[in-house]
Amino acid sequence: MQTQTLERMESDVRTYSRSFPVVFTKAQNARLTDETGREYIDFLAGAGTLNYGHNNPHIKQALVDYLATDGIVHGLDFWTAAKRDYLETLEEVIFKPRGLDYKVHFPGPTGTNAVEAAIRLARVAKGRHNIVSFTNGFHGVTMGALATTGNRKFREATGGVPTVGASFLPFDGYMGEATDTLDYFEKLLGDKSGGLDVPAAVIVETVQGEGGINVAGLEWLKRLEGICRANDILLIIDDIQAGCGRTGKFFSFEHAGVTPDIVTNSKSLSGFGLPFAHVLMRPELDKWKPGQYNGTFRGFNLAFTTAAAALRKYWSDDTFERDVQRKARIVEERFQKIAAWLGEEKGIEASERGRGLMRGIDVGSGDIADKITAKAFENGLIIETSGQDGEVVKCLCPLTIPDEDLIEGLDILEASAKQAL
Amino acid sequence: MQTQTLERMESDVRTYSRSFPVVFTKAQNARLTDETGREYIDFLAGAGTLNYGHNNPHIKQALVDYLATDGIVHGLDFWTAAKRDYLETLEEVIFKPRGLDYKVHFPGPTGTNAVEAAIRLARVAKGRHNIVSFTNGFHGVTMGALATTGNRKFREATGGVPTVGASFLPFDGYMGEATDTLDYFEKLLGDKSGGLDVPAAVIVETVQGEGGINVAGLEWLKRLEGICRANDILLIIDDIQAGCGRTGKFFSFEHAGVTPDIVTNSKSLSGFGLPFAHVLMRPELDKWKPGQYNGTFRGFNLAFTTAAAALRKYWSDDTFERDVQRKARIVEERFQKIAAWLGEEKGIEASERGRGLMRGIDVGSGDIADKITAKAFENGLIIETSGQDGEVVKCLCPLTIPDEDLIEGLDILEASAKQAL
Amino acid sequence: MQTQTLERMESDVRTYSRSFPVVFTKAQNARLTDETGREYIDFLAGAGTLNYGHNNPHIKQALVDYLATDGIVHGLDFWTAAKRDYLETLEEVIFKPRGLDYKVHFPGPTGTNAVEAAIRLARVAKGRHNIVSFTNGFHGVTMGALATTGNRKFREATGGVPTVGASFLPFDGYMGEATDTLDYFEKLLGDKSGGLDVPAAVIVETVQGEGGINVAGLEWLKRLEGICRANDILLIIDDIQAGCGRTGKFFSFEHAGVTPDIVTNSKSLSGFGLPFAHVLMRPELDKWKPGQYNGTFRGFNLAFTTAAAALRKYWSDDTFERDVQRKARIVEERFQKIAAWLGEEKGIEASERGRGLMRGIDVGSGDIADKITAKAFENGLIIETSGQDGEVVKCLCPLTIPDEDLIEGLDILEASAKQAL
Amino acid sequence: MQTQTLERMESDVRTYSRSFPVVFTKAQNARLTDETGREYIDFLAGAGTLNYGHNNPHIKQALVDYLATDGIVHGLDFWTAAKRDYLETLEEVIFKPRGLDYKVHFPGPTGTNAVEAAIRLARVAKGRHNIVSFTNGFHGVTMGALATTGNRKFREATGGVPTVGASFLPFDGYMGEATDTLDYFEKLLGDKSGGLDVPAAVIVETVQGEGGINVAGLEWLKRLEGICRANDILLIIDDIQAGCGRTGKFFSFEHAGVTPDIVTNSKSLSGFGLPFAHVLMRPELDKWKPGQYNGTFRGFNLAFTTAAAALRKYWSDDTFERDVQRKARIVEERFQKIAAWLGEEKGIEASERGRGLMRGIDVGSGDIADKITAKAFENGLIIETSGQDGEVVKCLCPLTIPDEDLIEGLDILEASAKQAL
Repeated sequence: MQTQTLERMESDVRTYSRSFPVVFTKAQNARLTDETGREYIDFLAGAGTLNYGHNNPHIKQALVDYLATDGIVHGLDFWTAAKRDYLETLEEVIFKPRGLDYKVHFPGPTGTNAVEAAIRLARVAKGRHNIVSFTNGFHGVTMGALATTGNRKFREATGGVPTVGASFLPFDGYMGEATDTLDYFEKLLGDKSGGLDVPAAVIVETVQGEGGINVAGLEWLKRLEGICRANDILLIIDDIQAGCGRTGKFFSFEHAGVTPDIVTNSKSLSGFGLPFAHVLMRPELDKWKPGQYNGTFRGFNLAFTTAAAALRKYWSDDTFERDVQRKARIVEERFQKIAAWLGEEKGIEASERGRGLMRGIDVGSGDIADKITAKAFENGLIIETSGQDGEVVKCLCPLTIPDEDLIEGLDILEASAKQAL
Repeated sequence: MQTQTLERMESDVRTYSRSFPVVFTKAQNARLTDETGREYIDFLAGAGTLNYGHNNPHIKQALVDYLATDGIVHGLDFWTAAKRDYLETLEEVIFKPRGLDYKVHFPGPTGTNAVEAAIRLARVAKGRHNIVSFTNGFHGVTMGALATTGNRKFREATGGVPTVGASFLPFDGYMGEATDTLDYFEKLLGDKSGGLDVPAAVIVETVQGEGGINVAGLEWLKRLEGICRANDILLIIDDIQAGCGRTGKFFSFEHAGVTPDIVTNSKSLSGFGLPFAHVLMRPELDKWKPGQYNGTFRGFNLAFTTAAAALRKYWSDDTFERDVQRKARIVEERFQKIAAWLGEEKGIEASERGRGLMRGIDVGSGDIADKITAKAFENGLIIETSGQDGEVVKCLCPLTIPDEDLIEGLDILEASAKQAL
Repeated sequence: MQTQTLERMESDVRTYSRSFPVVFTKAQNARLTDETGREYIDFLAGAGTLNYGHNNPHIKQALVDYLATDGIVHGLDFWTAAKRDYLETLEEVIFKPRGLDYKVHFPGPTGTNAVEAAIRLARVAKGRHNIVSFTNGFHGVTMGALATTGNRKFREATGGVPTVGASFLPFDGYMGEATDTLDYFEKLLGDKSGGLDVPAAVIVETVQGEGGINVAGLEWLKRLEGICRANDILLIIDDIQAGCGRTGKFFSFEHAGVTPDIVTNSKSLSGFGLPFAHVLMRPELDKWKPGQYNGTFRGFNLAFTTAAAALRKYWSDDTFERDVQRKARIVEERFQKIAAWLGEEKGIEASERGRGLMRGIDVGSGDIADKITAKAFENGLIIETSGQDGEVVKCLCPLTIPDEDLIEGLDILEASAKQAL
Repeated sequence: MQTQTLERMESDVRTYSRSFPVVFTKAQNARLTDETGREYIDFLAGAGTLNYGHNNPHIKQALVDYLATDGIVHGLDFWTAAKRDYLETLEEVIFKPRGLDYKVHFPGPTGTNAVEAAIRLARVAKGRHNIVSFTNGFHGVTMGALATTGNRKFREATGGVPTVGASFLPFDGYMGEATDTLDYFEKLLGDKSGGLDVPAAVIVETVQGEGGINVAGLEWLKRLEGICRANDILLIIDDIQAGCGRTGKFFSFEHAGVTPDIVTNSKSLSGFGLPFAHVLMRPELDKWKPGQYNGTFRGFNLAFTTAAAALRKYWSDDTFERDVQRKARIVEERFQKIAAWLGEEKGIEASERGRGLMRGIDVGSGDIADKITAKAFENGLIIETSGQDGEVVKCLCPLTIPDEDLIEGLDILEASAKQAL
């Protein structure tokens, strides 16, 4: 494989090509193919961007058909038939069955852009600058979003401009099982000199993807919603990674029965890996004046088209949802088994966690996790780590993965763990 | 046309659908079609995103072919054959003939993301926080980029979080013809108590698009480059709107013979309206450590494919470039004529300005400009205004526009001005 | 008493004249006299600024003598005999017996100025921007210091400029007895995505004065010092209110046996109520370049004179220290008794706390505390509340208070509580 | 002279003891005496803090008398007879004859504190965060004030926390005689994308002391006031150095006939070199709620006493004012002569400038100015430099300086210039 140009011309900032230093050419559902023709099972899926698999044929057909008609590809925020169709489908397929009523903002096609828009809207709506986010939370790296993102590697690379406008609080479980971390939040809210500026909003992931598959308890989420309501604070669920079915429901917050004031979506939203994002907001929060937030790519019609196709195909009834939950149990069981083996045979304190098909094995250290995933890659499985030290081996396989690929991937992972350690 | 869902569900932040309240369905080169079948000539072209026209057949073919092979669509920052092909093409077709040597960072597919990455890199590279930008400059609205963007409508909608880390200086011509605004910059740099924190970088558009088609003089740009070199300050050219041939050269800074340290590109970069952006940097400035800037959509393979096709088709020799310059003279002449008519017949102090096919007529007030563009829309021409008060009628037609469409559009504009006033 | 001019001309920001709306004319040790000749026992003592009493005759004599010689009053940061004498006395009387080695910075004569200088120095010395402060901490209200001060009333009155550069963590005991809050700090320090930017320094009061007489445990302080050492973080003790003998030692941190890297002093430092402050720093931390921090009043020679006199008089041996501790036990016992009465007779959950003569009764609510202190004022005792809701009746009487005044003051307080409730 | 302790114990931040490395012991009016008995004429006067001379006997008597009665020295912001007397005197002697109506805020006894309070009040009053200050302006170094101070030596020593909330504009004359810098300000105010956030206030010195005795023209000040009024922007005059008679009027803005919305005073305000400051504000701007800005030393009764004595003694009629103006002409004439000599004999482009007894000779470089002032010190004259490079030899002698001392000082300066160069 020819990689000199890539190594020479691409910035050193590149990462995945270091873990998986091959040139990929093709992909179908849960399988990637490199230039030599070698196939890999994909448990990464664009870090959760390809919930419906690579080149999903159903969705691709919608895209190709649209292109064939010379449909509008780029039209800033023009009204288009594709946009209208997407909004109608979103309402019919997603909002109505769930009793939701949101307005939709297309702020630019990336998650960080959606977060920037969401927290800015919250600030304007509430007239307060502070946003509470949580330890190990990841919400993007543009400067506004970065204020809510915990990772030092980004926060320390701003060249002398500290982030402004956010405060971190401990996520569920951060202080051990004995402590409900929301006690601390509630105490701070009631404390006139606690140092917590009353926030406009809380932004939270129900399952922290980059942070290490940290799962917020359903009771904790429900209590968080209650605290927000009681204190006139907006609840923003950042469902960029956990949404679009990843946890076994379309929105990850459905499990907890909470109704966020604002939701951010991106990653798998287009259904095809196209850049696409939106912010959902309760209608009365739509404080934007025309043009107060802009950008060139705030309405990508190819993504409207594929996103609508994905919604219609997978979310018109609960078949898909139940299938995801079924597969989730397979992964859960196998991950528990691997974790148990690590403990029993290798003395590594390991544990399984997750919700739906957003699952991980915490192996305690980034070094061990790296050994396992490097060996897995040798064996034909693409899987990454997450967590503050990269200590969690993370499965984000396509939700559409065939059972045989899923089993094969899990087999490779288990074998790789055994070979690596 | 059915617009209720659009009006009800989309956030009030929407803008273009207010000026052009129709539902578009199809587009080809410089013509848009709405749901009723009515056609419009497009002098907006996605605010400069569609330099090669809507649904450029040559580029579309490359896209459709790629999709047919199940090529990688989304792969985070994986190495792919499409990425390699794009980089090789960029080097061969663009860098080498111009004697340029840059490394490439794909920071996320939007202009604001490229600006965030560029200024952050500059800060890290120089160990200074300040970025100088210019009056009427527009560089994006995420919080980092917003610090360098002059528009109050965005700056005042941050909900109580002032932007940090940038200083504004007067753009070329801002203080009248008698004053070289760089005198002020140079004085401030040499002044130990002038209040200007020595900047890591200057970020500048050679022609300010949103700011009102304000054209930086070639001497001014050259002097700016000299000041930067003399003071160890990086020169960032934001070529998001002015680049990709818009001014009659691939990079807008070629006219002035300057070599920026860092360049940002987006908008027309994909050639097809797909979200795509990159940052070019002198190799020694590549201070990024692996993963220090990330995002989900930092390598959109469909855009690599279309972008490479566009480069090969339009930039392998100077035919296209010369054709753009030829069309530019047509627009310039007609704009001058319209401006003259406004002055002579209506007593409106109007003037033409621009570089290449990035041209405007300054009609002195947003009200007048709105009247003209509203009438033009009635007459089948889509054209927008820019400038701090929207006082500049701006032509950003596709560079590939057929002469007959160009003439027809100009005719409509002239007639509309006469009808409107 | 004539108060119209005062009410008309002084800004509404005034506070103490609302609680004690009389015009004071004279004061001696622990007694204040108003214009009508009425005397008050002073348990406020300039919020801890008059540890040696009002118009301490010994110190006043030094001041009057100095004035008589036409000694330098104001000389910017000139070397003067008074400054030299102060530094020598500080070294001989305070540093040497305690085994301390500090350099001294006179940054301006107020506590907030000392804090601004201290945290800026820490940032420069460590090359990191973040400062950790604690819930209910108070370190001043100028913008730099305010970032470390928890009170909403100040933080919300900045007119749209959020503070930058500090993070709050829970003070000792904040999360209940079962939780050592330093576990949370230590976890965050070791967490690469916890959201805590590695701090340059921690700033802490050993007893939080404004925050409600919250007493940091000696073990907690010792552990905090250890965490700082282990993580290359500077430990700043803000001893502005708790220092100068208030807790029964000259420095409040002596009890815990910790050695801060940086210390801030003000309030009682001059011994006479004159504006005076300094920053002590380990010599190797003196990263200031000449003139990098300035101000007009950074060496107030009258204060050098009175401060030296106070040190010589009260700190040359441990007589004073032991006397303070003796009185502290009297206050402690009486406060416990009052707290017990409140609980038993009134069902008010009240408790006593403090260290040395920095003591309070937490009566659970600001309303109750206000009733007690208002009644006390009627009865001739000046005493204020502190705590986030003003729920702590706070005793900061002069350390030099005669026993009979102390007892009388405590009697009044007890009687007032009984009358008020 | 014993200086080891001073050199060892005081932070390296010290400055004046580097230029004048002697130990001072006594001072009277315009003469300082060092430990060896050597006398110096003082053209520095505490950087404008001793307008009434060192140890002014009249003012000292008031102080000594007050101390003799055991008057309140420190009482937080208690009402005291001394405070009332000061406010009444201020109203009678200063406000009424000038037709002024201000409320008074005592925010802490330093200039920087007054500036912090003033700009915060302006932000709260106008609901906007931005403050416009000017090139070469100096308003203090605590973080809020520092945002408005131009000096790099302070701005670059914040340890990675950029200042927030202010924008610099060119002071009068900054861009040469041909340009009225307020044209730029006015253009920016009217420009919706100029990058200037509409300010809450402008803060300006009528004569920039630290900045190099840059004198704002009276027309320029008047126009600035007009621009502020027309745009609902508050005008803050920072009269900390130029006020209290320094320019020949009590307030320096009297010359221009402008009426600021807010005024800051400090330095000579106490009349005796005591730390003292206040903010004056139009009554309707007093938006403070009780206690929203606090600090320990916000009512220094010794300073009330001396300040009232100074006002009564020097400002009850115009005798003093006229005498200052008379002396100013002497200095002006001699400075012009020295400047002329420098030009004619040494080819140094030098010029004189100033207003009242705030005067300087710009000798073009800090090196030359340092040579002159170092020689002057050898010859018994204490005089400092100012300006961005220290290029201005600055006379801030006591306004009460006897003519013979003034002449002698000027003679020394002239001789020193001749000897040094």
